[in-house]
Amino acid sequence: MNTIIEYQQLVEKVLSAKKYGSNPKELYEPINYIMSLGGKRLRPVLVFIGCDFFNGDLDKALNPAIAIELFHNFTLVHDDIMDKAPLRRNKPTVHEKWNDNIAILSGDAMIVCAYQELCKSDVSILPKLLEVFSDTAIKVCEGQQLDMNYETTQKVSIIQYVKMIELKTAVLLGGALKIGAIIGGASDGDAKQLYDFGKNIGLAFQLQDDILDVYADATKFGKQKGGDIIANKKTYLLLKAIELAEGNRYMKEELHQWINAPQFDAAEKVEAITNIYNFLNIRELARMEMKKYYDIAIALIENIKVDEMKKRNLISFADSLMLREV
Amino acid sequence: MNTIIEYQQLVEKVLSAKKYGSNPKELYEPINYIMSLGGKRLRPVLVFIGCDFFNGDLDKALNPAIAIELFHNFTLVHDDIMDKAPLRRNKPTVHEKWNDNIAILSGDAMIVCAYQELCKSDVSILPKLLEVFSDTAIKVCEGQQLDMNYETTQKVSIIQYVKMIELKTAVLLGGALKIGAIIGGASDGDAKQLYDFGKNIGLAFQLQDDILDVYADATKFGKQKGGDIIANKKTYLLLKAIELAEGNRYMKEELHQWINAPQFDAAEKVEAITNIYNFLNIRELARMEMKKYYDIAIALIENIKVDEMKKRNLISFADSLMLREV
Repeated sequence: MNTIIEYQQLVEKVLSAKKYGSNPKELYEPINYIMSLGGKRLRPVLVFIGCDFFNGDLDKALNPAIAIELFHNFTLVHDDIMDKAPLRRNKPTVHEKWNDNIAILSGDAMIVCAYQELCKSDVSILPKLLEVFSDTAIKVCEGQQLDMNYETTQKVSIIQYVKMIELKTAVLLGGALKIGAIIGGASDGDAKQLYDFGKNIGLAFQLQDDILDVYADATKFGKQKGGDIIANKKTYLLLKAIELAEGNRYMKEELHQWINAPQFDAAEKVEAITNIYNFLNIRELARMEMKKYYDIAIALIENIKVDEMKKRNLISFADSLMLREV
Repeated sequence: MNTIIEYQQLVEKVLSAKKYGSNPKELYEPINYIMSLGGKRLRPVLVFIGCDFFNGDLDKALNPAIAIELFHNFTLVHDDIMDKAPLRRNKPTVHEKWNDNIAILSGDAMIVCAYQELCKSDVSILPKLLEVFSDTAIKVCEGQQLDMNYETTQKVSIIQYVKMIELKTAVLLGGALKIGAIIGGASDGDAKQLYDFGKNIGLAFQLQDDILDVYADATKFGKQKGGDIIANKKTYLLLKAIELAEGNRYMKEELHQWINAPQFDAAEKVEAITNIYNFLNIRELARMEMKKYYDIAIALIENIKVDEMKKRNLISFADSLMLREV
């Protein structure tokens, strides 16, 4: 059993030794670029954790871990085009550094490369791995489409929002763990429990993201604080505030004025909406919602019959995701 | 053994019975739309032919045939965004009918669906099928990137051009046949021969496309005649004309004037460049180049030990592609 830091180091080592073709360079440079930008490497680490949870051979998890990270980065490249995002991890996005066409095409190549990495696995488990991988991939596409739809949907319920983040974000954490579990030789039932654990932790993780956007310590947070507020992003916080403001005409009007303002001072908007959140106790409500999914996740782990130490390690990893400040 | 028409009917029957999810509809409607637009269904037919060539069970070729057609249509959806093409088979392209983001994302979902279809195959041949499929897919991406690069490259050699169309177009015909061959139980050697046959027929096919753009019977041709000329597309015909015009100052100047003209009458340009082609005997030279790849393909077939009737059938299919008028 390794620590999370050790797993992250292993991911970096494997990724830095990996090259993805060279010719034509316009196709492959963006892949090498985005894959070298770093990040928490959460998903490949989860592949390792899932594998080790059942005492599997970590060597067999290396290529699938790369596959999962390639897939995740493919979604980032394409999502950034759709969102017209200029920056990713404080560096220019692929479509900014090159152009939209190159970003579309190198993204396409990345998903094929991801399948190629996954297909290096033993044929005895390959169909299962492919099933989880494709099923997860298609759900991530569905989640991204829902996210785009909700940008222009007037009324989005919290149930719809949670379903969207489940598809867009949470299932990939579940899928990464399940792929690891299959490599580790888990029973179908245990692999499913670990998938559901990952999915629920993923929901909690995204809710934590929503909270951090508003309440992170600005000195530690790597992104623009209040970015979601400025962009009217329908996060749990905003949707809950809209719901609660229904009963308070003054607050409802102020909230909708800010949401619908064609021009505004960004800092002023962030402050005003944060004040509304504070008044409505939104941070605590979001934290409780996050805790709900966290608790479901933890309960799922308890059902799996593995060494207690493994469970404690996984839970402390989940805790570190919940307590993170960036 | 079936006729080509029967194979095409089988493809249409299988495709029309197939649905690709429904929710969110913005993700799946474009997939159902593009897959229903028809076309020659050349690639899935080649999967059937490859399978039948070795007396394989056509039922086992159904899902891989869908996979190949899904992949081909995925490339069309993304290529059409990159080319800003308004029409595909006389209907609005996906990004025109919906928007760029939906076209990117539904294309992404299509490649995942393609893998899902392929993965329904027997595990005994799955790794081989996946290897051919991914290898082909990555080459198609490389070919599309080269095609984009060549749009802004001043000098493109005919060797470079042929390599580009090999990657962008020809390998997928080879890959479709090889996937069929593997399902049919071909030896590795025979499957490779059939792949190379398909690749060379693919090259001949694309050269025929280049010729038809200029010399098709306008009453039968479904596209704008001379479209490649108007767009300065670096086809075999144009590259050969540029090469041959080197030795004729007057012709070289006239050719480059038309190529570099910022404004022009389309019909006039098509007529002028066609006249240059005629003077330089480009049509015949292109036909000879096409014949070269056709002959290589036919010779490859002769090496495979299967029933003579199968060979005759495959060759007559190749002939129909060469003699086509659209």
